[in-house]
Amino acid sequence: MSCLNDFLGIKIPIIQAGMVWCSGWKLASAVSEAGGLGVIGAGSMRPEVLAAHIAKCQVATDKPFAVNLPLIYPHAEAHIAHILAMRVPVVITSAGSPSKYTAQLKGAGCKVLHVVASSQFALKAQAAGVDAVIGEGFEAGGHNGREETTTLCLIPELVRQVRIPVVAAGGIACGRSMLAAIGMGACGVQVGSRFAVAEESSAHNAFKQAVLNAKEGDTELIMKLITPTRMLKNPLYKRLKEAEMAGVAPDALRELLGRGRSRLGIFEGNWEEGELEIGQVAASIQRIEPAKDILDSIWTEFHIYKKRLAEDWQ
Amino acid sequence: MSCLNDFLGIKIPIIQAGMVWCSGWKLASAVSEAGGLGVIGAGSMRPEVLAAHIAKCQVATDKPFAVNLPLIYPHAEAHIAHILAMRVPVVITSAGSPSKYTAQLKGAGCKVLHVVASSQFALKAQAAGVDAVIGEGFEAGGHNGREETTTLCLIPELVRQVRIPVVAAGGIACGRSMLAAIGMGACGVQVGSRFAVAEESSAHNAFKQAVLNAKEGDTELIMKLITPTRMLKNPLYKRLKEAEMAGVAPDALRELLGRGRSRLGIFEGNWEEGELEIGQVAASIQRIEPAKDILDSIWTEFHIYKKRLAEDWQ
Repeated sequence: MSCLNDFLGIKIPIIQAGMVWCSGWKLASAVSEAGGLGVIGAGSMRPEVLAAHIAKCQVATDKPFAVNLPLIYPHAEAHIAHILAMRVPVVITSAGSPSKYTAQLKGAGCKVLHVVASSQFALKAQAAGVDAVIGEGFEAGGHNGREETTTLCLIPELVRQVRIPVVAAGGIACGRSMLAAIGMGACGVQVGSRFAVAEESSAHNAFKQAVLNAKEGDTELIMKLITPTRMLKNPLYKRLKEAEMAGVAPDALRELLGRGRSRLGIFEGNWEEGELEIGQVAASIQRIEPAKDILDSIWTEFHIYKKRLAEDWQ
Repeated sequence: MSCLNDFLGIKIPIIQAGMVWCSGWKLASAVSEAGGLGVIGAGSMRPEVLAAHIAKCQVATDKPFAVNLPLIYPHAEAHIAHILAMRVPVVITSAGSPSKYTAQLKGAGCKVLHVVASSQFALKAQAAGVDAVIGEGFEAGGHNGREETTTLCLIPELVRQVRIPVVAAGGIACGRSMLAAIGMGACGVQVGSRFAVAEESSAHNAFKQAVLNAKEGDTELIMKLITPTRMLKNPLYKRLKEAEMAGVAPDALRELLGRGRSRLGIFEGNWEEGELEIGQVAASIQRIEPAKDILDSIWTEFHIYKKRLAEDWQ
């Protein structure tokens, strides 16, 4: 069985991705209670809000859970203080240098995983002492790497290059894609989009419906000049894309984007004006379900297809 | 074992991709002799050149091989005439409607596979009567789909939606990525980039060296306004990309591209001015090897990792 289970104290090697405006204590505790690793996404939270979510999560489950912390955010320092004071068992860092906080977190007994989009950053994270890397491919929703390396190209390369465990993220939403990731050499998977539309996700119902309606080709990674982000092709996307195609400068693009777009799109459900961050795999997502059912169905399917592979390919 | 083997009369369910200026009779016959399906890429050949390659391939091997035929090319009709007259056992069609020639080819006893980048086109190909589809993801080299769907997102969806066999292409160059593809439900894989640098590939040595030198992030899918194409980031790429970013019109981009760029880059080895089409997985390719060694190593690794998966994930 996966090395992730022992190491993180979980039963199912599926990590629910930290996602702005989706993954508060409700989603995180539901996933952890069901045997996976639930993750509170701190990216959309002020420090006192994060502390409240951690406290509620600790009431809702006595199982391990994590906080996802984008290191470039202005509140990172205050977030870390709460994480340490409240003894959060696992921290997933992203979007920033892992060398800054890893030693401090590990010194306090936290497990630290770092999200990377390239082998180069995986090696840096390993050198910084993180316990595992989460390799996230081009197909993932939200903020993403500039290299556009897909999960299928990224994970085998990470497995070859680093000594620490590798978790696969981006494009994983069912047992088949989980089996693919394990076949690449990952020791577990991180699933975002499918949990973004879980019943316990704090996203607005209009956002969840937009995700369910998405077909192949309905997301795109844009804004490569400022912050590469994968989102649904809504009216805001169209304006940003047109500006990009017309060759506007980064500052003009930043101004057009403005602030608070992900809150507007994901939390308030504004189709026209919001930034609707979701992965390419949205096209395969059919239902709003409880987090436990999502976790169980991926894990059950994984075993069915693993057995079938062993039988069919003797 | 894979349904592809019986159906195509091969021993190893690995198809060598048809690649302009790389895959003539030498590469195709070497792959077929070694037990895979070798493919002559007709995209860079005039009809009489294709006929000569088919004839030489038939002398070099008595095993099944295929011709890859981009249907949008002006010579498609004449190509088909040679394919039928010379009794080529397998045809892989791409870049065009499979409804035009499939019945004719199948009527003459050819097996027909069609390359698709989306479920929508896979369903059309199935309706047109093709025997199998090759699902090609965003990470693949050369011409590519507009939806940017990655192999990991595409293949599980194709397997769910079509009844005919699905072959996975894009990002596959080793046993781990082959195992991933089979885990997704594919019944075989198509491998391009690694065969592009095979000893028997007719590509120029300077092109092969450029592929070996490629690191993560060194290819990009550009020219989405005219023909989405993945290529190495050489000086020609830089000019095309700058023009794109400056918002030039499709016609201006076409003019900047001009004609004969893939021949110049791949066959003549011109780093500055050529179009160097290759997949994202180039970053993982380390050596120029005989086609047989490539085939054997992928197939051997596939079995090693399959066994390890079965043992580690009981």
